[in-house]
Amino acid sequence: MIDKLAIIGVGLIGGSLARALRDAGHVGEIVGHGRGIENLQRAVALGVIDRVETTLASAVRAADMVVLATPVGSMKKILQAIAPYLAPDAVVTDVGSVKGAITDAARKSLGKKFPDFVPGHPIAGTEKSGVEASFASLYAGRRVVLTPLPETKTEAVQRVRAMWQAAGAEVVTMTVEHHDTVLAATSHLPHLLAYTLVDMLARQHDSREIFAYAAGGFRDFTRIASSDPVMWRDIGLANRDAIVRLLKQYRAEIGNLIKALDSADGETLHTMFARAKAARDAFVAVDQKKEEP
Amino acid sequence: MIDKLAIIGVGLIGGSLARALRDAGHVGEIVGHGRGIENLQRAVALGVIDRVETTLASAVRAADMVVLATPVGSMKKILQAIAPYLAPDAVVTDVGSVKGAITDAARKSLGKKFPDFVPGHPIAGTEKSGVEASFASLYAGRRVVLTPLPETKTEAVQRVRAMWQAAGAEVVTMTVEHHDTVLAATSHLPHLLAYTLVDMLARQHDSREIFAYAAGGFRDFTRIASSDPVMWRDIGLANRDAIVRLLKQYRAEIGNLIKALDSADGETLHTMFARAKAARDAFVAVDQKKEEP
Repeated sequence: MIDKLAIIGVGLIGGSLARALRDAGHVGEIVGHGRGIENLQRAVALGVIDRVETTLASAVRAADMVVLATPVGSMKKILQAIAPYLAPDAVVTDVGSVKGAITDAARKSLGKKFPDFVPGHPIAGTEKSGVEASFASLYAGRRVVLTPLPETKTEAVQRVRAMWQAAGAEVVTMTVEHHDTVLAATSHLPHLLAYTLVDMLARQHDSREIFAYAAGGFRDFTRIASSDPVMWRDIGLANRDAIVRLLKQYRAEIGNLIKALDSADGETLHTMFARAKAARDAFVAVDQKKEEP
Repeated sequence: MIDKLAIIGVGLIGGSLARALRDAGHVGEIVGHGRGIENLQRAVALGVIDRVETTLASAVRAADMVVLATPVGSMKKILQAIAPYLAPDAVVTDVGSVKGAITDAARKSLGKKFPDFVPGHPIAGTEKSGVEASFASLYAGRRVVLTPLPETKTEAVQRVRAMWQAAGAEVVTMTVEHHDTVLAATSHLPHLLAYTLVDMLARQHDSREIFAYAAGGFRDFTRIASSDPVMWRDIGLANRDAIVRLLKQYRAEIGNLIKALDSADGETLHTMFARAKAARDAFVAVDQKKEEP
């Protein structure tokens, strides 16, 4: 149970967590802080948060749980700003898609409160953003990864775990490095590839017509290119080593594909496509099973 | 109105057309031919076709409309095989995603019947295949592109147009070359990129875990990688010039992305992602409007 929850960044992710915890009766008071005052007022009107705090200091003061749900790029500044105002019993966690950069920033900024910081990442979301897009069941059955450090307090991990479980999520732990490698592959790389494709096509001279003949497959493939550009710029920069490694590998694979097409090597193409289909079908089968009650 | 419709390849595309035409009362008898006898028997049991013809000759004999709905790679052989048996009043059309290769094959195979051949391509489909996946409304509000040649009979085009309109589609015409360029960008390239990504990730040593932490975005992005590998091998080979051109361009864009990440150039990343998001959001807005009644 959380007495006072401070959500910094009341968008899709922060707003959905607030809604879920309220529904679960896991929280007393919820205060919100963020850059867009209209979004925050809307969050109050929707009942997502109880009130707006206009400074970071007042938002975190006396809060026993502080959740950072802003784009990854702004977290360093926020950690520095809140450090002096955190209550002795406050636990701090975040929802960033990259854990290495945020953990480094937290270590530098939080000082003696660092053991109360639990790096976290809910594997959930849609391409939409803002509190209007938030909903209480976003985390139901989804995984939340926590990446505690050796110095992280067990009790802090336990409280963050209990929070996410109350929101309906399944909580797992892994190292910071492992998280960032795995997420680069399943999330960061696909987002960057989708942005790159849509941007390339949008800059073709006949782009209007190209999009006019796009069907459902294109729509699905490019859905993630409608995600928030600031958020993904930050993620790209924060996890660039792992992402660049994968991008180089992918570029080499494109080279192999070009070679197979140039030499009309149907066997290689079929092997590649069939292997991909089998892997994707297996992934979906597991994913669907996971979602069953 | 079609008296006898012969569908060669009774899968998602051919089966859905049969169902739609039956529902619209636009067809008398529907016969089916294909390689998988179980699939054909299932098509009869489902009422999608009236009966199975075990040879191409008997399937097309006395048919006034012949629809080729097989993978692109098999169309050349089929066109050669049916040519001697086509009725004088028969119109032949296809549903292939590539029009250049099929048109060349038809010109060589059909001889004096070539003016009765109307190259076609419904911009519709799902990642599923087989007659079980077919449904009557697949083409409702979707576009069908016809690419008639200078020698194609106007009446043949008119009959194919009427057929697709009866199935609920909007029919447009363009040149073979233009079709193949546009579709390479919106359909062929995305499919090949999705296959390449899933195949690459499936071959990583920790692939099981990678897929375990994939979320909805990954699922959408890779949906097209569950498409039929034979179909896409054929499309890749049949339209390889246009596809390779785009793949090389895409590979260069990946190079630019790597450069921006390596130099921590957040401004370039943001510009690229924001431009992509704007284009994708605009495309979806138009696409949704199109689907409204």
